[in-house]
Amino acid sequence: MNHDTIVALATATGNGAIAVIRLSGAGAIAIVNKIFKGKDLAQQPSHTIHFGTIRDNGDILDEVLVSVFIAPHSYTGEHVIEISAHNSRYIVERMIQLLIQHGARAAQPGEFTLRAFLNGRLDLSQAEAVADLIASTSAASHQVAIQQMRGGFSTILKQLREQLIQFASLVELELDFSEEDVEFANREQLRVLIAEINDVIQKLIASFERGNVLKNGVPVVIAGRPNVGKSTLLNTLLNEERAIVSDIAGTTRDTIEDEINISGVMFRFIDTAGIRDTHDIIEAKGVERTRAKMRQARLIIYLADPQQDDVDEIKSQIAEVAQLDVPFVVVVNKVDLLKQDKLEALRAIEPLFISAKNNVGVEDLKYELLRKVNLHNLDAEDVLVTNIRHVDALRKTEGALQRVLAGIDSTVTSDFLAMDIRQALHHLGEITGSVSTDDLLDNIFSKFCIGK
Amino acid sequence: MNHDTIVALATATGNGAIAVIRLSGAGAIAIVNKIFKGKDLAQQPSHTIHFGTIRDNGDILDEVLVSVFIAPHSYTGEHVIEISAHNSRYIVERMIQLLIQHGARAAQPGEFTLRAFLNGRLDLSQAEAVADLIASTSAASHQVAIQQMRGGFSTILKQLREQLIQFASLVELELDFSEEDVEFANREQLRVLIAEINDVIQKLIASFERGNVLKNGVPVVIAGRPNVGKSTLLNTLLNEERAIVSDIAGTTRDTIEDEINISGVMFRFIDTAGIRDTHDIIEAKGVERTRAKMRQARLIIYLADPQQDDVDEIKSQIAEVAQLDVPFVVVVNKVDLLKQDKLEALRAIEPLFISAKNNVGVEDLKYELLRKVNLHNLDAEDVLVTNIRHVDALRKTEGALQRVLAGIDSTVTSDFLAMDIRQALHHLGEITGSVSTDDLLDNIFSKFCIGK
Repeated sequence: MNHDTIVALATATGNGAIAVIRLSGAGAIAIVNKIFKGKDLAQQPSHTIHFGTIRDNGDILDEVLVSVFIAPHSYTGEHVIEISAHNSRYIVERMIQLLIQHGARAAQPGEFTLRAFLNGRLDLSQAEAVADLIASTSAASHQVAIQQMRGGFSTILKQLREQLIQFASLVELELDFSEEDVEFANREQLRVLIAEINDVIQKLIASFERGNVLKNGVPVVIAGRPNVGKSTLLNTLLNEERAIVSDIAGTTRDTIEDEINISGVMFRFIDTAGIRDTHDIIEAKGVERTRAKMRQARLIIYLADPQQDDVDEIKSQIAEVAQLDVPFVVVVNKVDLLKQDKLEALRAIEPLFISAKNNVGVEDLKYELLRKVNLHNLDAEDVLVTNIRHVDALRKTEGALQRVLAGIDSTVTSDFLAMDIRQALHHLGEITGSVSTDDLLDNIFSKFCIGK
Repeated sequence: MNHDTIVALATATGNGAIAVIRLSGAGAIAIVNKIFKGKDLAQQPSHTIHFGTIRDNGDILDEVLVSVFIAPHSYTGEHVIEISAHNSRYIVERMIQLLIQHGARAAQPGEFTLRAFLNGRLDLSQAEAVADLIASTSAASHQVAIQQMRGGFSTILKQLREQLIQFASLVELELDFSEEDVEFANREQLRVLIAEINDVIQKLIASFERGNVLKNGVPVVIAGRPNVGKSTLLNTLLNEERAIVSDIAGTTRDTIEDEINISGVMFRFIDTAGIRDTHDIIEAKGVERTRAKMRQARLIIYLADPQQDDVDEIKSQIAEVAQLDVPFVVVVNKVDLLKQDKLEALRAIEPLFISAKNNVGVEDLKYELLRKVNLHNLDAEDVLVTNIRHVDALRKTEGALQRVLAGIDSTVTSDFLAMDIRQALHHLGEITGSVSTDDLLDNIFSKFCIGK
């Protein structure tokens, strides 16, 4: 257990009824005991809650509920105290000061979870999933995060790693008998195992694109000539979403512009000049910059206004969009103003007809967006890689395994083989934190919020 | 116990590690039990915490800690469950939806505290103090709120009310024997009691001005001709405050402009045209409006720049400010640029010499502000009225008591006396909620945040 005790506000700041201040470390119970008047917290069993007051030099700072968690039965694996106080800025600031005066120190971002990792309460990829879980804003991003936090990903990697470790030991054993030219590790079995591992790794790497999009949202660009109704469409999509969110009492949503949750999948609208301002994708100036943005998108909505553009013009614009090699949806806006002959002429292109202003056809468009990205029918058991660090490590593992295979083929000596297997193990281990460095940990946990 | 069970997010929204969702009502435990997988919550003792998962149709929504409070041993006096979850917007929204699907309903603002009041866990003035406590941003406002929440105010009023009730009963007893012209209630004793009560009520009413200023901040106007350095002074005061606040790890302060906490007392700078923009208090146009603002202030800082204004001009301006009958501090800015002869000439006015830009003399100014409002040496036991509703009720009580006194003097019949005493009791009772109406309760609790 860590001998310094950390303290931080664990809840968000702002308007709310209660605030929770969390301490972890060997001194957590003793420190709170010094300023808590109620019961002797040192005498209380784990997982119990106690009413009392926090005193500042005798003066009552607040009436609180104190939760006691005794090591190792806590989030961090250390003694943990949670103080549930009235959520006043003054009380929270003063209470943290007071706890620091009595021997705690202010926690670094992610330090509670870092301790949980260091104490073996969760592995590194699970710890990372905690941050993802907190950041998740849609059913899909939530699902991949909780899957990872529950260890689905780690379990697979640990199994692979264990099998590989067995071979590594056998190969290394050969080193001790190197003069006798024995082969403890069956090369054919090793080749089969590596092929198996490679297969899993390939699938995990391949899942990244999907996982990343689920985690961060599907990047979408709405393209089209000026005044075709791009902003109106965006607002129609956004407003509906806002209405849904504000239905749920007790939750005030931070205003996030340009993110739309459709059936649990987040669509993130990339702000090209084309989305908000007047913009012309065929216009010479700035075309390349907009095209670059559009290429980054996973989906383009091409919006046309047949009042403005004639059918041939629309067709030529669609041909341009098609060249970008990004999935796209052709949408004809202002359908309510459309004359019959033009409507017939446009049917050939097979667009979606909508009126963004009157909210006609927008539901169909949403369905089409979901269909195009093919992300809504995610299986709860699917293991997806969502973390660029994990993909990097998987790719490095893959490289090392290729070298092992090449080594077997060219019958290199056991020591080279052992080295490459160790390398593969190292990279696999980095994902779950079986192998870790201070730099790596710093890098991961510094991105957490304070109090987690 | 209420048979409908309410649910709300009890913590603030925004960045933070954990969120607490709170339920109260007869069904709280049963409802959570339906979606919680871990232990059977119905079998757990009060004030215990249980780890488990919240399931949405079998899928894991989150790993949580559930706190169980069994009626009447809870904040509301009902069964209360608190679910401590990962603070993701998605999880919080989904979990509240889920709890509503399983029989809870979204809580109204302040409904938890309203239930606490209705169940006799706290009286009305204590309930109001909870809201004040959460809103408190300074040591002083915190102190008056916690004093009130702990019942200091209520205790005094209850004692007064009980004594008065005794007399009321005696006077009313006389009504039953009205034909016999007896006097059970000794008029002289009643007169003495009313004088005592009046004395307390007077003090309480008188404390309001002080209490209100402590609760809401001391309204201050910085006056002075254009370009004397008003904004610079304000910024110097503000910046220092910001630096102090950001020292405390784990708390991000909402940016509140123009509020300065000096030794625990909040000073609130009223934004007259004069504070931020160029402004001239002697200029004809708009003078009256600014004067009105200045009269609302509890303190005026009159800032002069002797580079601009000659000494006589400054004196004449000070004379104008003095007419407003508001305490004021005369401050001469840009002291570093001041020539010796002018400095000598200005000494006669006895101003504070500062340089707002170079932070010279600003500490002295702060000390002077504190001294002028005479609020920093507040006794922890001081009972202050901070609520306009309470002052109104106290004034009405006072009026009724005056009528009782007048009645005794003019020897009116017991029934009139009884009526006025009842009136006084009614108004006293309104403060603590011994007497309350739905409208009154609505009005009070609708100002609370949801989840409290």
